[in-house]
Amino acid sequence: MDAITVIRTKRDRGELTDAQIDWVIDAYTRGDVADEQMSALAMAILLNGMNLREISRWTDAMIRSGERMDFSSLPQPTADKHSTGGVGDKITLPLAPLVAACGASVPQLSGRGLGHTGGTLDKLESIPGWRALLSNDEMMQTLRDCGAVVCAAGDGLAPADKKLYALRDVTGTVEAIPLIASSIMSKKIAEGTGALVLDVKVGTGAFMKNLDDARELARTMVGLGKAAGVETRALLTDMSTPLGLTAGNALEVRESVEVLAGGGPADVVELTLALAREMLAAAGIHGKDPADALRDGSAMDHWRRMISAQGGDPDAPLPVAREQYVVTASSSGVLTGLDAYAVGVCAWRLGAGRARKEDPVQAGAGVEIHAKPGATVTAGQPLLTLHTDTPERYGYALEALAGAVTVAPAGTPFTSTPIVLDRIV
Amino acid sequence: MDAITVIRTKRDRGELTDAQIDWVIDAYTRGDVADEQMSALAMAILLNGMNLREISRWTDAMIRSGERMDFSSLPQPTADKHSTGGVGDKITLPLAPLVAACGASVPQLSGRGLGHTGGTLDKLESIPGWRALLSNDEMMQTLRDCGAVVCAAGDGLAPADKKLYALRDVTGTVEAIPLIASSIMSKKIAEGTGALVLDVKVGTGAFMKNLDDARELARTMVGLGKAAGVETRALLTDMSTPLGLTAGNALEVRESVEVLAGGGPADVVELTLALAREMLAAAGIHGKDPADALRDGSAMDHWRRMISAQGGDPDAPLPVAREQYVVTASSSGVLTGLDAYAVGVCAWRLGAGRARKEDPVQAGAGVEIHAKPGATVTAGQPLLTLHTDTPERYGYALEALAGAVTVAPAGTPFTSTPIVLDRIV
Repeated sequence: MDAITVIRTKRDRGELTDAQIDWVIDAYTRGDVADEQMSALAMAILLNGMNLREISRWTDAMIRSGERMDFSSLPQPTADKHSTGGVGDKITLPLAPLVAACGASVPQLSGRGLGHTGGTLDKLESIPGWRALLSNDEMMQTLRDCGAVVCAAGDGLAPADKKLYALRDVTGTVEAIPLIASSIMSKKIAEGTGALVLDVKVGTGAFMKNLDDARELARTMVGLGKAAGVETRALLTDMSTPLGLTAGNALEVRESVEVLAGGGPADVVELTLALAREMLAAAGIHGKDPADALRDGSAMDHWRRMISAQGGDPDAPLPVAREQYVVTASSSGVLTGLDAYAVGVCAWRLGAGRARKEDPVQAGAGVEIHAKPGATVTAGQPLLTLHTDTPERYGYALEALAGAVTVAPAGTPFTSTPIVLDRIV
Repeated sequence: MDAITVIRTKRDRGELTDAQIDWVIDAYTRGDVADEQMSALAMAILLNGMNLREISRWTDAMIRSGERMDFSSLPQPTADKHSTGGVGDKITLPLAPLVAACGASVPQLSGRGLGHTGGTLDKLESIPGWRALLSNDEMMQTLRDCGAVVCAAGDGLAPADKKLYALRDVTGTVEAIPLIASSIMSKKIAEGTGALVLDVKVGTGAFMKNLDDARELARTMVGLGKAAGVETRALLTDMSTPLGLTAGNALEVRESVEVLAGGGPADVVELTLALAREMLAAAGIHGKDPADALRDGSAMDHWRRMISAQGGDPDAPLPVAREQYVVTASSSGVLTGLDAYAVGVCAWRLGAGRARKEDPVQAGAGVEIHAKPGATVTAGQPLLTLHTDTPERYGYALEALAGAVTVAPAGTPFTSTPIVLDRIV
């Protein structure tokens, strides 16, 4: 077996055999297949595709490159959620304690933000004292005590994926459905959850810009999960405009706490409940309405316990950025568009995100949204407030907003996009 | 400018701008673009192509990565030949002194063999004392004194190509016409020849397996040469069966000397004369028939001077392999096929070629051919003699010959393939 033959097979539109896939993943993890060989293979996969058998074997080989976790000793069924990433997507924060309050265990291994989408761990780290790194034992204990845990994935889980993801990030080979699907699913299957709900985002602020690509990705991932014995389903959800009224770390924590307190923006509440219902059903928990757990305070109780268990103070004031800048409406009428990607890039440039893995993020930076698509606006009215500790970045951040806001003449009909676009089971 | 944007442009079937090409070649040469980024780009180019403007700029950027040679101080016009590589392709050996004898200067920068095709330098190194490495001054002096020089290309010529070629070799990205064309032409243009004849091989033993691909490669290279002011033309020549009656280093030197002595196999003589005529015409030398220079001994005189100038003894006995093994015809009839690729791999496995750049080659190893396609053969008659210093390799070498020899019943009509298949000017 040699790397060149494997690369040529895929380059010439052939199917990789199980043995070729097992060998190349193992040899790459060990360093016997070089980065420059794997990146050529990744580009060939991106351009020529893989069939479901190949993707499934590829996923399995990445799982076998590391350890698998086991939650079978927990009394409750486990359920996890994964989002493909969007702007203002803080759903994990209210969702994990909410589902825990309804009787499932939620082991949520999360990531950090890179590029214009934020990361769940970055958001939670804006809570004073909270820490993302837990040992496997600490993770298990938190799950037992609080019903939910949100923490960083350990190094032992699918190390092949970790190495390959870093490579794809610098070689223009991220946007390949077979590689995206196997990357996500290898981590989730190795994590050992019994049920999994995928939130596949569609729109300018998402990885998948159109519904067909998103549907293909969702179907592939649901197929991979089921083949591995994980009860998996997916919702395709709208990411043409930011979710909720905030994009930025501490800003999004504040909004999440509002949702847990029974308030919060309608779209965030709607999506949180839709995902919670899918997770509970997938975990085999019936007869619980998660809306009750928002109303009766039990979701908030779980949140407070979960944050405290990881060193965070749920009552501490959240960091606030040093400077604010208000963007106003330039004309009156109906706000018909507020582009998710533009807002995401703007928040990122303000300091909420990072350009490289090793960069720090600003806890208080980001964008607050005062009007969502469908709203009637008046010239001069505040539309957005930009927050940053580094006001010298305003110019660069404002550039990202060029063309992001669309105001149509008063009376222009506006049809809102539903949050949940499709469901794949 | 960044590598990921350049990779994405080509991945998404876009055209690379001049600035992108200049930047990526320069940054790769300096090490600012990593190997894994360049290999992803090379795969995207292989699968999505480049247009003539892109290839031309790419070639130019590789030339500008190093030095250019200048032969304008020589009294004679310069003419060079490049073959895309085949089995038994020793043509450079008789051709360079022959064209020199007819009044051109022939600066032939050559390479070593890798895989199933032999390398000119490996062949000449089987002559006791001969050395391939010359300084630029020694090269110039040999050209002045002997009219021809065959030596290794210096490190200063197109270093970007050197680095990229080594990368393509291990990443399955060799077989891309834009990259093959720019690799060959960047070295030949930087070398500074005034006229260039390309011998583009077609058939099982060649890089290009079919006439259409070969024609596209030839047209691309002729276009690149002319655009750079080099009088360039190409012959497409047959490589479905080995050239001449030998494949192997010392074996091919012996056959080349036979040609220079006025004998030798008909196909080798025919192709040598066809290429010599193209080179002389391209260099603007008219009224000389190279066949005369073979007959009157002047080509042989130039050979002897050229070999001596580089330390070789033209009268020394050539190395002979320690062991021989004769392959005989298994049935009687007409020999209709003797596959070039199979014979090339057999010679390579006997020790005539190398699997890795740093491997040594055996001077005496190779295959001697006793019957060429079209010949009438009798069962038990010798067809091939295998030569090697390492007889333990016979089994492995013979495996390569499975299906390589086709004998049809006596009386089966046989139409021979012409050596020169097409001409591109």
